Amino acid sequence: MEALDYHAEERRKAEFDLEEMKIVWAGSRQNYEISDRMARLVASDPVFRKDNRTMLSRKDLFKDTLRKAAHAWKRIIELRLSEEEAHMLRSYVDQPAFTDLHWGMFLPAIKGQGTEEQHEKWLPMAYKMQIIGCYAQTELGHGSNVQGLETTATFDPQTDEFVIHSPTLTSSKWWPGGLGKVSTHAVVYARLITGAQDHGVHGFIVQLRSLDDHSPLPGITVGDIGMKFGSGAYNSMDNGLLRFDHVRIPRNQMLMRVSQVTREGKFVQSDVPRQLVYGTMVYVRQTIVSDASCALARAVCIATRYSAVRRQFGSQNGGPETQVIDYKTQQSRLFPLLASAYAFRFVGEWLKWLYTDVTQRLQANDFSTLPEAHACTAGLKSMTTSVTADAIEECRKLCGGHGYLSNSGLPELFAVYIPTCTYEGDNVVLLLQVARFLMKTVSQLGSGKKPVGTTAYMGRAEHLMQCHCEVERAEDWLKPSVILEAFEARAFRMSIACAKNLSKFSNPEDGFSELSPDLLEAAIAHCQLIVVSKYIEKLQQDIPGKGVKRQLEILCNVYASHLLHKHLGDFVTTSCITPKQGALANEQLRLLYSQVRPNAITLVDAFNYTDHYLGSVLGCYNGNVYQRLYEEAWKDPLNDTVVPDGYLEYVRPILKQHIRTARL
Amino acid sequence: MEALDYHAEERRKAEFDLEEMKIVWAGSRQNYEISDRMARLVASDPVFRKDNRTMLSRKDLFKDTLRKAAHAWKRIIELRLSEEEAHMLRSYVDQPAFTDLHWGMFLPAIKGQGTEEQHEKWLPMAYKMQIIGCYAQTELGHGSNVQGLETTATFDPQTDEFVIHSPTLTSSKWWPGGLGKVSTHAVVYARLITGAQDHGVHGFIVQLRSLDDHSPLPGITVGDIGMKFGSGAYNSMDNGLLRFDHVRIPRNQMLMRVSQVTREGKFVQSDVPRQLVYGTMVYVRQTIVSDASCALARAVCIATRYSAVRRQFGSQNGGPETQVIDYKTQQSRLFPLLASAYAFRFVGEWLKWLYTDVTQRLQANDFSTLPEAHACTAGLKSMTTSVTADAIEECRKLCGGHGYLSNSGLPELFAVYIPTCTYEGDNVVLLLQVARFLMKTVSQLGSGKKPVGTTAYMGRAEHLMQCHCEVERAEDWLKPSVILEAFEARAFRMSIACAKNLSKFSNPEDGFSELSPDLLEAAIAHCQLIVVSKYIEKLQQDIPGKGVKRQLEILCNVYASHLLHKHLGDFVTTSCITPKQGALANEQLRLLYSQVRPNAITLVDAFNYTDHYLGSVLGCYNGNVYQRLYEEAWKDPLNDTVVPDGYLEYVRPILKQHIRTARL
Repeated sequence: MEALDYHAEERRKAEFDLEEMKIVWAGSRQNYEISDRMARLVASDPVFRKDNRTMLSRKDLFKDTLRKAAHAWKRIIELRLSEEEAHMLRSYVDQPAFTDLHWGMFLPAIKGQGTEEQHEKWLPMAYKMQIIGCYAQTELGHGSNVQGLETTATFDPQTDEFVIHSPTLTSSKWWPGGLGKVSTHAVVYARLITGAQDHGVHGFIVQLRSLDDHSPLPGITVGDIGMKFGSGAYNSMDNGLLRFDHVRIPRNQMLMRVSQVTREGKFVQSDVPRQLVYGTMVYVRQTIVSDASCALARAVCIATRYSAVRRQFGSQNGGPETQVIDYKTQQSRLFPLLASAYAFRFVGEWLKWLYTDVTQRLQANDFSTLPEAHACTAGLKSMTTSVTADAIEECRKLCGGHGYLSNSGLPELFAVYIPTCTYEGDNVVLLLQVARFLMKTVSQLGSGKKPVGTTAYMGRAEHLMQCHCEVERAEDWLKPSVILEAFEARAFRMSIACAKNLSKFSNPEDGFSELSPDLLEAAIAHCQLIVVSKYIEKLQQDIPGKGVKRQLEILCNVYASHLLHKHLGDFVTTSCITPKQGALANEQLRLLYSQVRPNAITLVDAFNYTDHYLGSVLGCYNGNVYQRLYEEAWKDPLNDTVVPDGYLEYVRPILKQHIRTARL
Repeated sequence: MEALDYHAEERRKAEFDLEEMKIVWAGSRQNYEISDRMARLVASDPVFRKDNRTMLSRKDLFKDTLRKAAHAWKRIIELRLSEEEAHMLRSYVDQPAFTDLHWGMFLPAIKGQGTEEQHEKWLPMAYKMQIIGCYAQTELGHGSNVQGLETTATFDPQTDEFVIHSPTLTSSKWWPGGLGKVSTHAVVYARLITGAQDHGVHGFIVQLRSLDDHSPLPGITVGDIGMKFGSGAYNSMDNGLLRFDHVRIPRNQMLMRVSQVTREGKFVQSDVPRQLVYGTMVYVRQTIVSDASCALARAVCIATRYSAVRRQFGSQNGGPETQVIDYKTQQSRLFPLLASAYAFRFVGEWLKWLYTDVTQRLQANDFSTLPEAHACTAGLKSMTTSVTADAIEECRKLCGGHGYLSNSGLPELFAVYIPTCTYEGDNVVLLLQVARFLMKTVSQLGSGKKPVGTTAYMGRAEHLMQCHCEVERAEDWLKPSVILEAFEARAFRMSIACAKNLSKFSNPEDGFSELSPDLLEAAIAHCQLIVVSKYIEKLQQDIPGKGVKRQLEILCNVYASHLLHKHLGDFVTTSCITPKQGALANEQLRLLYSQVRPNAITLVDAFNYTDHYLGSVLGCYNGNVYQRLYEEAWKDPLNDTVVPDGYLEYVRPILKQHIRTARL
């Protein structure tokens, strides 16, 4: 059985060096090795089993999560894993848990917003998990508009304390992960009030539960907010609600790096530049983009492998039917997503560089590139997560009826992924921020202020308004310079068109609001340009391994051409390309699909996902799909008995015509 | 509390007669009254409660379904409901159950494919539910390609029986609803074999379970196929698997209306026209389109109401924030879906007419319009269900973070809806059928054969290839004739372009396969034209009620203009409109949104959904959303105890640093 591999023939078709591609995907040989080791560690440990997850009741699922989190912590300690390894191990456990928020939000909030003193007090406990924290920002009635939060933290100079209070129902904290049942502490965001003055929203460390018996402290009402999308998925997480009834905390539990309240109740701004928060934001969003490429790759891996197993129609002379991956309709939906996974991977890699660049500049008190970096990360977070969410569902559809089974892995992947479009900045709100930045950049073009970074192309205004695409034959669309110019011209001209329309409004804010749907489209065009251009930059690097670079070039062309076809209206109405050139791009796209086809299975093998992590019968490595589907079916609780519970009360009386007389 | 209505002010803004609009939506006053009565009947009956559904384990959920099905049957008998009323009652129970397949597939299959004799034997038992049946067609390895099914029915002339057998793993019946745990009988599709001859796939009535104790009969292996997408949703249904080991049934259990096997084992075709099946297909697809409008309306109702409750940003001088429904970004995503719900409703209504027309023609042996009717219903099924599936998820996103909570109703609506895109014809396969029909129609244009029905416009080939859109100002886009011509020209020119490209291939099948992605786009353009044109026809009818017609006109314009904007590339590259005219349509669209805005809440009230049926805290009629969210949260099983199960074993040891030594 070891040798069983229904994909063996597909794998022999590959025209590139798989091992080198794995390293490209992972970013470096070192990343690849750590990631591979952690994935195998998790996959081989029975505690981390997840194939029965969607059948568990909420309570059992939650207990299973606590068990896994504790076991992961134990392994991390036993194996003396580095922070990076520990993070990777947790991500391969692949089950949302309170630890995500403890490590991903609570600790970073204290690190970023706390003083040295506060670091010394809180970080050691948090690192050892002697306290477990969450991040309590959003409220029942308040999401994206952080400045509209209602929770108050009123300074009481008499006792040197803050009084944390929820004045309304809508001010109840709502959604924080880990809050519902586990966290002992929270960073709570509340309006700081001293005297009669409201100083806006600040962060406070608040203990929620007793460290002795885990019961909520006086004045604190806390619980879980209930079931969420899907089975399994985020229901393993105790997203919580929290109300404060005049809860008192010592003054030194306000996070005071940027602003302070003195013993006398005086509100003071420190000289720490407020722009520091942007550094964290760039970091968090970079990880989100990188996670998007992972999630997208997972869905694509499942759909690609199953498309090679599944056959439909086209049987000739009683031979086997056609593999669905050979249909152009399947390729035209699947391969652009495969290309997007690689494209997002590379732009995520570039964002890592951007983060180090931003950090260095911050340390040198150079804030000049911050607005651009902020807009760029906001846009990429929005665009990559929206595309990934839709793509997971598209991959499910590409698996036909069986994609609807939980054990295809796709329903849960979708359910667990989609919140990413909302948290850390709602995707529409973020795109509007990008649009605002683009309009500002355009308005300053005449002033001699040179646009930087990802907006640098706008400095070539004259050229971009006049240039003509020189494509004459389909293969002209393979030239990176041609692609780049078309995307730059389209993005720029869309921004200019918006700016022109905006100028017709006497009140710019009214105009922005009225034209916001068009502004979103301009922002998306800009973000797509960034991804395309970073992919092209990546290809200019030295990429070793037989055929690896060639494959990546093909995928880059697929990515760009499919966007061109999808947004043809943009390109043509802005006169960046002619309808004829659009048709040539489409023709080229079809040829590219044929070049991807023999490499498709190996291109998804390069993600190096274990069967455990994939969690999909349809996507399993050896392709033994139907046997496994059949075996898995029998594990459903409904199959515990031949005759189902309820038959005697509710089915038999119907069949026996007893229903007319019986009281059910 | 009776008077509490957070939407009262919104409702006062309406500029049309709500009661008349309700009747328009329902199709007739009679439909409205029956539907209203059945909805209230279900909503007021505690057995039909569904607010705890997503928290139930699979077994409990299934038992709950059996209970509801039995109770519904009891009520149907007690109240002597008509078939139509019974159907409506079941649909308002809103929980997929074996009864759906019994009434919707098993009975119609016997009616449509059985002989008079078979009707007399089986229908009375089925109508009384003395037997419960399902529809066993798809197999583990075979979906859309019915002719590829592997199950065999071999005639044994010695015993006058058929031997039903599953020769391979992939021939296991897979997916039939009601099969897993309930059905006593099935219509099984299998390859008919007499002597050594394979006569293709036919239907057979097979008993699966004992009517005494419900145990599977000898030779039959049957069970549930396991968990599906989401919590609640289709997990209430026992979609099943089924294997036959040489199961024998009497010869007279083959459904013999169209083909027969004689006592001697001779295969005979009857003189009943095979086209009769198309009648059923048109009927089933008409109901699917009508259901699409319902599901879409439900999602839109939830998103619209909550968009009026939810506020975000834009607070001035401490006043309330802006209702999100006032944002153009929200309107530009929501209102086209609202318009689509009405558009699909009207095209569904027209399909009802088409069905009666087709039936009458069939009875008169007129098969001339059948291929067109078939293509048209296939396309509309595909297009409306795909749009609805995506729209439900879009509505969830439009509800922000809270849309992700199960009690928003949207996750379950999505999970329960999406299979519609696969069953009764996979949406991509159906669109390819439409495309094939369009190419055939185009190829016959020169031959003097006049295109009929929804393809009649192709008869004006010369005009449609030459016409120029005459829009000069935004308001020109309000003229139905202008809209219609633009959609006709676009659809026609896309078909012509495909036909031209196809003609370049020496093998037409290779060409069709290679160009299939483009063909799909042409098919979609054709389907969108049908919906637009049927909506415009509807508006030419007499529609009573103050302001009702005006509102419907506005929505029709929203529907057409948003498609124009979304598919701008199609319209512009085919030179049907200029970029400038595209921009004018977009401008007009913004003005239309402002006209929809004051009527939005009342336009969704017109769907007349009860809070029970909507099943959404966010969409509840009186808009008391936050109070209800807060109350619902506490009902989650995790909130049964303050300290969660698992704390002592898995959380405390971490906090107390016992994990280093403890064995977890």
